[in-house]
Amino acid sequence: MTPPEPELRVLTSTKYLRFVARDGWEFVQRANCTAVIAIAALTDEGKLLLVEQFRPPVNAKVIELPAGLVGDEPGADGESLADAAHRELLEETGYQANEMREVFRGVTSAGMTDETITFFIARGLRRIAHGGGVAGEKIVIHEVPLAEIDAWLWGREQLGIKLDARLLTGVYLLQSDT
Amino acid sequence: MTPPEPELRVLTSTKYLRFVARDGWEFVQRANCTAVIAIAALTDEGKLLLVEQFRPPVNAKVIELPAGLVGDEPGADGESLADAAHRELLEETGYQANEMREVFRGVTSAGMTDETITFFIARGLRRIAHGGGVAGEKIVIHEVPLAEIDAWLWGREQLGIKLDARLLTGVYLLQSDT
Repeated sequence: MTPPEPELRVLTSTKYLRFVARDGWEFVQRANCTAVIAIAALTDEGKLLLVEQFRPPVNAKVIELPAGLVGDEPGADGESLADAAHRELLEETGYQANEMREVFRGVTSAGMTDETITFFIARGLRRIAHGGGVAGEKIVIHEVPLAEIDAWLWGREQLGIKLDARLLTGVYLLQSDT
Repeated sequence: MTPPEPELRVLTSTKYLRFVARDGWEFVQRANCTAVIAIAALTDEGKLLLVEQFRPPVNAKVIELPAGLVGDEPGADGESLADAAHRELLEETGYQANEMREVFRGVTSAGMTDETITFFIARGLRRIAHGGGVAGEKIVIHEVPLAEIDAWLWGREQLGIKLDARLLTGVYLLQSDT
């Protein structure tokens, strides 16, 4: 169903993003990775792992699923999506997952970017490191009982913290996972 | 919690998008609207309204919630989010909603854009027009039993049609709406 791709014209290119046009339509591409993954990770105690960090584009702290770019680190050429999911979960939360399963692939905002995000469900979690992200990242980790997620998110919002729209996609995927 | 905004530098600007930098971080902004809304609309028969259209950035058809830009049409200055939700639902699906309620606000992809999307739940639906979008839009409307949504989406994906990651956010919001 996918037609051949018309020619892509680069309007502006930087280290991380490319502003491009195709067929008279402008949009943005990530320049430094091959894909994006997010992880809906549930502990044996039924707690969802969430991360909180300052995001310059929205000038605020944001609550998100652990997530990251595939193949964006030195030596990570050819990294698989599942490998990236394991790596990001460990880097951001300190947890290692026995089970890492791809469950859903969706486009982020198809009017303005070609970004596609692949969701994994992670179970069988064991904390083996401190987490918090790699150099330059200051990530706060939250472990939230899945059954109390709505009230908890509401509370964070009252503090002026923003929520990632895809976070609830992760909650839905976990709830409907058999 | 929101610090004062550091100065914004415009790298490239077009009719619809602005590629900008702030504090050494590059991202993209929509240039022609004040906000983005999406509607999780459920008919009295328990069917979710979804739209399908070709999206140039991903070079494929995409299944999404009815959605749109606030204040992007001539004479629409000062349009409220709820007004835009009513207008977009009618334009895209032909349905008028008795009830249109804001339920969630989330950021789209906070590492690359400041786009924020506000979700509405629409009920009390009555079809009063054909839908299909405004000039230039070729939107196909689907009415999918909410109870069968996972299987239906899987079937569309097998046809090479892409899914919007925020679609499941809408499903979650409807399922947890009391």
